[in-house]
Amino acid sequence: MQIMINEIKNWIKEAADLVKEEIAKNDMTIDTKEGRKDLVTSVDKKVQDFLVEQINNFDPEAKILAEEDGRDRLTDFSGRVFVIDPIDGTLNFVLEKENFCIMIGVYEEGKGKLGFIYNVMQDHLLWGGREIGVFINEENLTVPKDLSLKDGLVGMNSSMYRKNAYNAQIMAERSMGVRMSGCAGLELIGLIEGERNAYVSSLAPWDYAAGSIMLEALGMEVSDINGNPLKFAGRELFMAGTPSAYKEMRALVEQSETENS
Amino acid sequence: MQIMINEIKNWIKEAADLVKEEIAKNDMTIDTKEGRKDLVTSVDKKVQDFLVEQINNFDPEAKILAEEDGRDRLTDFSGRVFVIDPIDGTLNFVLEKENFCIMIGVYEEGKGKLGFIYNVMQDHLLWGGREIGVFINEENLTVPKDLSLKDGLVGMNSSMYRKNAYNAQIMAERSMGVRMSGCAGLELIGLIEGERNAYVSSLAPWDYAAGSIMLEALGMEVSDINGNPLKFAGRELFMAGTPSAYKEMRALVEQSETENS
Repeated sequence: MQIMINEIKNWIKEAADLVKEEIAKNDMTIDTKEGRKDLVTSVDKKVQDFLVEQINNFDPEAKILAEEDGRDRLTDFSGRVFVIDPIDGTLNFVLEKENFCIMIGVYEEGKGKLGFIYNVMQDHLLWGGREIGVFINEENLTVPKDLSLKDGLVGMNSSMYRKNAYNAQIMAERSMGVRMSGCAGLELIGLIEGERNAYVSSLAPWDYAAGSIMLEALGMEVSDINGNPLKFAGRELFMAGTPSAYKEMRALVEQSETENS
Repeated sequence: MQIMINEIKNWIKEAADLVKEEIAKNDMTIDTKEGRKDLVTSVDKKVQDFLVEQINNFDPEAKILAEEDGRDRLTDFSGRVFVIDPIDGTLNFVLEKENFCIMIGVYEEGKGKLGFIYNVMQDHLLWGGREIGVFINEENLTVPKDLSLKDGLVGMNSSMYRKNAYNAQIMAERSMGVRMSGCAGLELIGLIEGERNAYVSSLAPWDYAAGSIMLEALGMEVSDINGNPLKFAGRELFMAGTPSAYKEMRALVEQSETENS
């Protein structure tokens, strides 16, 4: 596994250099996907192509699930699967030139083995898995405290909060505050490092794969909003948190469903 | 003015060292002010005491308006006034150990002269004023593009967004997205650097002083939510943006008031 870890770290650092070069050149093309706020750039595609090429060289048998270029569906999770998000937080990438991540999750026979989230502009790499633990750059991460909902910050997407979907406003109110960063990777880093107690959002598999693997390695809770395992098939409502915060939020979700039924 | 600029930069760097030492010592005391989410720590007070001492040594005649220790009201703005926030984003400081700022604004005869916002953990200093322009660390800042509402990210506080106060939800919807960072300094840095097109929130003078001075130097719009000058007397609804985004948001505020009257 150490060989694969070193390989993936090298890919990510090279991909990040590619991103920084493209920012410096300042000639990327920007297209929309589903609606004017759903952007994809030539850089997303370049980075994905680069990562796919590295994966194919390293393990030609491996399957790939990735955000761009029609690689966004995978039904067979046997063998080794790489789940990649070349640029998570594309809107931030375009408008802020920071606050975006490169993410890679590795699954073997359907089980999460390794997750990598790289905050490119801060040169901040989180990586690890159940067998090896979780690391910040080369330092062993301390398992975060089991913060209750009232003692931490909740990351949330704006739509759920606005609509009070699943009692999202009550979750936020009971916490210390709500944060919206526009980047799943940053929210997951926050949770992994103990700077958040929970995160709920509508996410695709490449948004949650790497983070889920590390969160599970740390004993955190990860599921869809109803407490079921994530499906890795299209967008779904993702919920993760410390054991205590997660439990309180799941109770609020169930309460909202009773009220609405 | 150059002497004062150098002095203030030195104070800020020393204050930041003090903050980092306190983070490393990890024995700060935390109290609440108005409610359980309104925190103040021993570090906020230490940093303010340090800055007040430096100001008193530098200019014993100067007045000080600051967040802590009963210095939060000032009625006489004649002469030189320093407006300071020792730690802006105290909740982030406590829970994240990052994403907080030290801010200083300097006024002379009621006019904004110099603003300083320092993102402590990223070692990122924005400073400047109408006469000298605005700088990032030692580099001259490029005046940001006049982004329209639909082409940028809006920073907003959660309460306004949740309640759709002054059509806040419509502002967010018409933009590229809403961001909540829990730190006025970070939102103002975003706006000053062209990574945001607008920011609306309930702020106190020490939250908006430094940023307003730099925004005005860059030709951005700054006012209370009704378009009136800021009062520097307690908390008020602050609104700032690029000229285009500000105009669109002011129109939405006026529309909301017509609807509610």
